[in-house]
Formats: sequence, structure tokens, C-alpha cells
Amino acid sequence: MGHKKKSIENMGVSQPYNFRGHVWIDGTEGTFIGYGRVILLERIREYGSITKAAKSMKMSYKHAWDLIDSMNRQAPKPFIETSTGGRGGGGTRLTEDGEKAIKMFWEFHAAFQVFVVQQEKDILAANGVKS
Amino acid sequence: MGHKKKSIENMGVSQPYNFRGHVWIDGTEGTFIGYGRVILLERIREYGSITKAAKSMKMSYKHAWDLIDSMNRQAPKPFIETSTGGRGGGGTRLTEDGEKAIKMFWEFHAAFQVFVVQQEKDILAANGVKS
Repeated sequence: MGHKKKSIENMGVSQPYNFRGHVWIDGTEGTFIGYGRVILLERIREYGSITKAAKSMKMSYKHAWDLIDSMNRQAPKPFIETSTGGRGGGGTRLTEDGEKAIKMFWEFHAAFQVFVVQQEKDILAANGVKS
Repeated sequence: MGHKKKSIENMGVSQPYNFRGHVWIDGTEGTFIGYGRVILLERIREYGSITKAAKSMKMSYKHAWDLIDSMNRQAPKPFIETSTGGRGGGGTRLTEDGEKAIKMFWEFHAAFQVFVVQQEKDILAANGVKS
């Protein structure tokens, strides 16, 4: 949602009304699925490991685990599964519900980006503010 | 955006995906117009006094003044004016641009409430989650 272009087009006298916001999904205990949690789930999918996923985000294992635990508690079915032992030595993977949560969040997030740009345009125009 | 009704309809087994978010307007220095700032402007309109407006929100005068100063600095023209002396002993009032800022924020806020409810409905349905 950068608005650099505006300043250039208007030779530095850009209007200062930049519409912003953020979105997330609450569950039964408050925050359930948000931007950081979704990135963490995607990293877990990528690395197959909570430790590696946390490290890639410069996040402590404890913090990552707390976020996962919060999601697993609030989800009807857990978002990640850990298997132990076996030939590959076990691993962590996303469940179908985990994938669905990621998908729904990005759908909401993408729709919001479109909404904000449109609102800024419409509301500024309706109120006679040049954008 | 309360979802109490859902739990009742579903006899306590409500889905836990409650779409949420918040919106604000950035200016040249970051936050420009947000929920708290708009309430403060409305209280100033009501009381004609920053001191009384701040008090009514259990906010320090310094904090209220910092918010107003931030808005006045970022606005093309100030949002509030203070007149001193005169028969009424002066007072603080909103300018036309201050009124417009309030109006634009509430328009954005209201549109967002509608957007979120619709998104929750559409995205849950598209992903087969009963709401």
C-alpha cells in the first residue's frame, strides 16, 4: 500500500490521507490467525521443523510454540502434527485444516488490500480531497 | 462485530473463525487519524476545551495535546483552533478540515464493518466452514 508515486505526480504536495489497516481472525481466546502466525505456519511447511521455522523468523522456540499451541487449542482440529521416530526420524507437518487456515487468511488479507485502495479513492473523492 | 448469536444458533459448537481488523489513516509522519484521535476531536467539539475533552477520556492533557499537535502538523490546515480572550474568554473549536477528517474516518470505519462481515461470510462459505 505504498503511496510514493503520489508525491512524485503531485510534485511533493501530496495529500496526506493514506488509508491503512490490518486484519486478523479471532478464535475463542482472542487472536487465532494473524499475519505472523500464518508466516510461521508457512515456514513450518517449508522446513518441516518448528525449531528451524522459528529460527528463520528470528523468533524463540518458546514464542513459536506458544503461537502454535494457541492455534491448535482454538482450532476445531490441530493445524500441525508431529510424528516421532520412523525411518525419517519424524517431523512436523501442516494438517489440511492448517492449510485451510493459511488460505482463508490470505484471501481475507488480499480482499482487504483491494478494499483499502478503493475506499481511499472513493472517500477522498467524495470529500473533495485531491489524491 | 459481536458473534454471540452464532454460539446460540449452533448450540455452543460455533466455528471459531471471527474475522477482525482495524483501520486508520496515516499521514506524513505515520498515524494521522485513528479511532482515539477522532473521539478526542469529537469531545473537543462537545466541550470546547482540550482540558475537558482529555479529562472525559481519562487522558492526560499532555497526551491529548500530543495527539492534536500530531494531527495539526500533518494536516494541510489545522483541525482545531484556539481563540484567546474576547467576551467568552476564548475557546477551542474544530475547523472545517477537522470536521471533514472526522467524517472521512467514520465513513472508512463504517465501510470496513460491512466489509468484514461480508468477508467472513464469503470466505467461510467458500472454504466449507459452517458459520
